[in-house]
Amino acid sequence: MTDADDAYDEPLFQRVIGYAVGADRDVVDMVSGHPDWEPPAALREGLRAYADGDPPDFQYPPSEGLRELRAEIAARRNVDESRVVVTNGAGEANYLAMAGAMERDAGSEFLLTDPVYPYYPGKADLLGADATRVPVREDGHVDVEAMRAAASEETAALVLNTPNNPTGAVYDRESVAALADAASEVDALLVVDEVYDHFDFSGRFESALTLDRENVVVTTAFSKSMGITGLRVGYAVFPEDLVEEALTRHMLVNVATSRPAQAAVATALKETPPTYYESVRDTLRERISSFTDALDDADAAYTTPEGAFYVLARFEDFPGTMGNVERLIDEAGVAGMPGEAFGDAYDEWVRFSLCTDRADEAADRLAAYFEER
Amino acid sequence: MTDADDAYDEPLFQRVIGYAVGADRDVVDMVSGHPDWEPPAALREGLRAYADGDPPDFQYPPSEGLRELRAEIAARRNVDESRVVVTNGAGEANYLAMAGAMERDAGSEFLLTDPVYPYYPGKADLLGADATRVPVREDGHVDVEAMRAAASEETAALVLNTPNNPTGAVYDRESVAALADAASEVDALLVVDEVYDHFDFSGRFESALTLDRENVVVTTAFSKSMGITGLRVGYAVFPEDLVEEALTRHMLVNVATSRPAQAAVATALKETPPTYYESVRDTLRERISSFTDALDDADAAYTTPEGAFYVLARFEDFPGTMGNVERLIDEAGVAGMPGEAFGDAYDEWVRFSLCTDRADEAADRLAAYFEER
Repeated sequence: MTDADDAYDEPLFQRVIGYAVGADRDVVDMVSGHPDWEPPAALREGLRAYADGDPPDFQYPPSEGLRELRAEIAARRNVDESRVVVTNGAGEANYLAMAGAMERDAGSEFLLTDPVYPYYPGKADLLGADATRVPVREDGHVDVEAMRAAASEETAALVLNTPNNPTGAVYDRESVAALADAASEVDALLVVDEVYDHFDFSGRFESALTLDRENVVVTTAFSKSMGITGLRVGYAVFPEDLVEEALTRHMLVNVATSRPAQAAVATALKETPPTYYESVRDTLRERISSFTDALDDADAAYTTPEGAFYVLARFEDFPGTMGNVERLIDEAGVAGMPGEAFGDAYDEWVRFSLCTDRADEAADRLAAYFEER
Repeated sequence: MTDADDAYDEPLFQRVIGYAVGADRDVVDMVSGHPDWEPPAALREGLRAYADGDPPDFQYPPSEGLRELRAEIAARRNVDESRVVVTNGAGEANYLAMAGAMERDAGSEFLLTDPVYPYYPGKADLLGADATRVPVREDGHVDVEAMRAAASEETAALVLNTPNNPTGAVYDRESVAALADAASEVDALLVVDEVYDHFDFSGRFESALTLDRENVVVTTAFSKSMGITGLRVGYAVFPEDLVEEALTRHMLVNVATSRPAQAAVATALKETPPTYYESVRDTLRERISSFTDALDDADAAYTTPEGAFYVLARFEDFPGTMGNVERLIDEAGVAGMPGEAFGDAYDEWVRFSLCTDRADEAADRLAAYFEER
């Protein structure tokens, strides 16, 4: 367990990308989690239709979210519409959830996993909270017993991400339920970020909303599922008694979420067939398979993601430091993220994002590089 | 001077609109400040062009703002690009500015005017700060001496809005400079919200950016100037030493501002001719003139806005309470905002927004109503 007070290091992503762009050679970018595939056709249609609207369509949408989008979300998630707050991406959804946990005056510590998506400790810091990281199990899954043991009356919330970035683990329903209990025992919230919910290759993923608990907040976005990280449309589903405070904060910080983006997502949500999402998953499955095959050739240890779209690889005598990542860029022509960016538990590893159609090529380069080395 | 700790009453806007919608008769809506005019043609074009973009165009823009938009803003405002943070509307810009003032650990009180736009005391409350309101002068202008007298080492920032909602005052450059000095004397910031800067009928408006002071943050948005409150694109110009903290907060709360909205605004900013803005001002000038003529007929006192698009009116023995505003809806068929929503100083007044092409009709209804009464 390590203290993570000062662990906001998201700009590291930018540093790596900057280094790769500045490199003197062709580099395959496997750093960022920006989808490289097409957004749904209906999303483009929704934007075009919006552009033709009347002046009132260009004015403030309801602060809680455009009516048709909120209703569609509530229907699909089988929750009361009043619990849904449409946000400026999962980023704001997580911010509102974590701020709401602090507002309860029931602890000021967030329990996170190690490794962890760097934005969570960053938000904890912004909110003046402590962040404690609990190492995951060997298989990348959350260590339920260790989380329970770490939880105390100081704990404001446990924050999970499933399917997980960076480990690729899809937490099973029982574990998430047990963590909701553990949170409840210390009067804390369980915040579950499910932004990769459409990228479940295990067939096991179930939303924490199905637990129907009063201390669970689920956050997500359309950023990954529709390949539109730039549109900034996400949402949080709060328990009834936490909605009002979240809506007030949302209004005071942002007033509302950008309307053309909401309108386009509403159209896409209604009109996009399941085959769109299946086809993206198929592409990712192929990329995972050929990338990990090549990692076998490179004699690397690696994770095979159950969900999300990242592969962690560990090369012999080659820890996941910024220095080594820069070396891979310069000498192998492949850019990944240093595992140390996510905490201590995976600091021997490098994370490779599969948001590129050149994953094959990158894997071959890695195999060749480590063979020669 | 009144304490305004618990003064977040923005939902009052919604309450009045709800009451008007539920009324048993036709009501002219003069409550909200949503432009009812056309957005620039280039804005629609910009959205359409965005909809046809490649997948990378749908991914995260730079957190600080889309490159072409930020560059265009910096060039027009004659400031270094590094000082510009593109935000989710003026709402987020003001939130970042006020949060930045608190982060300096140089006081935790905001000095506001009375009357004041209710979001400012709301944000102060969200940030755990105190809010003190200083009554404006009889003519609706900021009372520089009273503000200076109220400023102390407890003061984190003075927050101004010019052209002003609701008084319509356009503060003169000397007053704003004097307030920057007053703020500086107590190691405070001066935050100037200039969201109505395109609606100056006095010819006297000058941006606080022209003062070139190290303790001044200017916030604004394209919401009003382009008639697009729903797109949520604004920005703040910070002094150099406050930019980094603002960028971190912006990233941790929102990651970035919605990209289609930014792209459309960038196009509109470059391609919209001055005649667009002039034509909107002409329309508003006509509305102000015919509305205030009819208020003369109703024997009402009123403000003639030097800027922005609101008229405050005071009817004899008819204070600006919620009850009286409901009466005007039911009995006169005109909806305005109770002056008490903006503080104590104008609680005898009702605010009428000119974002309707039925201002004439509303004024006639008011004249007839107060004649019969």
